[in-house]
Amino acid sequence: MKIAIVSGKDEGPTKLNAFDNALTDAGIGDVNLIKVSSMLAKNTEITELPKLKAGAMVNCVLSEITSDNPGDEITAVIAVAIGEELGCVVETTGINENPEDLTNEARKMVEYMMEKRGVKTKELIIEKSTATVEEIASVVASVVYLNDEIIEG
Amino acid sequence: MKIAIVSGKDEGPTKLNAFDNALTDAGIGDVNLIKVSSMLAKNTEITELPKLKAGAMVNCVLSEITSDNPGDEITAVIAVAIGEELGCVVETTGINENPEDLTNEARKMVEYMMEKRGVKTKELIIEKSTATVEEIASVVASVVYLNDEIIEG
Amino acid sequence: MKIAIVSGKDEGPTKLNAFDNALTDAGIGDVNLIKVSSMLAKNTEITELPKLKAGAMVNCVLSEITSDNPGDEITAVIAVAIGEELGCVVETTGINENPEDLTNEARKMVEYMMEKRGVKTKELIIEKSTATVEEIASVVASVVYLNDEIIEG
Repeated sequence: MKIAIVSGKDEGPTKLNAFDNALTDAGIGDVNLIKVSSMLAKNTEITELPKLKAGAMVNCVLSEITSDNPGDEITAVIAVAIGEELGCVVETTGINENPEDLTNEARKMVEYMMEKRGVKTKELIIEKSTATVEEIASVVASVVYLNDEIIEG
Repeated sequence: MKIAIVSGKDEGPTKLNAFDNALTDAGIGDVNLIKVSSMLAKNTEITELPKLKAGAMVNCVLSEITSDNPGDEITAVIAVAIGEELGCVVETTGINENPEDLTNEARKMVEYMMEKRGVKTKELIIEKSTATVEEIASVVASVVYLNDEIIEG
Repeated sequence: MKIAIVSGKDEGPTKLNAFDNALTDAGIGDVNLIKVSSMLAKNTEITELPKLKAGAMVNCVLSEITSDNPGDEITAVIAVAIGEELGCVVETTGINENPEDLTNEARKMVEYMMEKRGVKTKELIIEKSTATVEEIASVVASVVYLNDEIIEG
C-alpha cells in the first residue's frame, strides 16, 4: 500500500468553494474523494503525491473544517502511525482550539490505537493545516491511498 | 467517463422510507450508493440512466433532503459543468428557500470552480427536484457514475 | 454476493477510540470501511465474517452510536431482508430508547422496502448491539460486503 499525506488551506466566496480551493491547494482538488475509515496495510509506504487523473475515484481519510466567521482560527490534523503489521490514522479538527493541543490529542489517539492492537509504531507522522479566517476559509489534511489506476500517465 | 443525471421525489411512512422511495423514483433505489466528491474526468459523456444491477456498488454525487414537517417546500439541486479537460459538480439543498435562488447559487458555485481551474465550460446542466411535504417527503438529485460492471445485461 | 452480519461494543478513552474498539470487537477494526447505502444483490448469501486483510477497502452498511454520557443506554440495530431478486438493509440507532422498539421499527422499515419493491422476504435477520455507558462507549452493527480481494490468505 502506498499513501501520500497532504494538506492545504484557502479562502473562497462560499463555504463549498473555500473547501474546494483548499483541496486544490492540497493537490487533490481534481479528483473524486471517497472517505474511508482509517487503517493502513502492512508495509505501507509514504510517497510524494503524484499527479492524479482528473475525475479519478480516490480513497482517502479526510480531516477538514470550514468557517465563515472572520477571525476564527481553524485547524485540521491527521496523525499517521506506521507499523509492520498494519498502521492507523486519526483525524481531528478544531475551531479556536490550540493547534498544539489538537496535535497532541491526535497523537495520543493514534498511539492508543496501535497499542490496543499490539503493533509497534515504526514511524509517526503528523500533518496539520491552520488558518485564521478572513472571510470564508477552509483547511484540510488528508491521507490519500494511491494505486496505479488513479495516477496520471 | 459516462454519467447519468437523475432526480426523484416521493412520500413515505418514515424519513428513511421516503428517502428510499425518492431514490427509487430517480431510478437508483436498488443499488448501493457510494457518495463521492464532485469531479468529472475529461470528455465526460452524459447518457440516459441504464438499468443498473440490483445491489451494485455505484459511485454518485447525491443531493438529498427529507422533511417530516407538512407544508415545507424542499428542494435538491445538482449543477454539472462539463469541460474538455475536466468537469465539476455542485450539490445544494434547501427547505423553504426559493428553488430559483438555489439553482442560481449552484450555477454560480460550479462556474467559479471551473474558472478557478481555468477550464472552459462547454455544457452546464442543472437538475432539480422540488416538493411540498404532505406528511413525510424526500427529494433527490444525483450524478451517477456509470461503468460496465454496474449495468444490467 | 456474500455478506457477513456483525456487531460489537466497547468502552475507550475518547469517543474515537471507543468507536474503534467497538469495530475491533465486531471483527472489522483493521480495515477501511466505506459506507454504502443499503441494497443487496439477488441470491445474497450470509456467511461468517472471514479474516479480512489489514487495510483492505471494505464496503459496509454501518449502524453506530457513541456516547460519553455515563448511564446512557445506547443501541445500534441492523435489519436485513433477503429476497430472491434483491435484498434490503435498514440501520437505526437510539440513545435511551427501548431496544425492542428500535428493533421493531427497523423490521417494519425493511419490510416496507421489500413490499414496495414487490419482493418476497425469504429471510429476515436483526442484529443488535446495546450497552450502558460507563464512561465513553460505542456500539456498532454492520452488514459487511465480502469479496475475494479483501479476505486474508
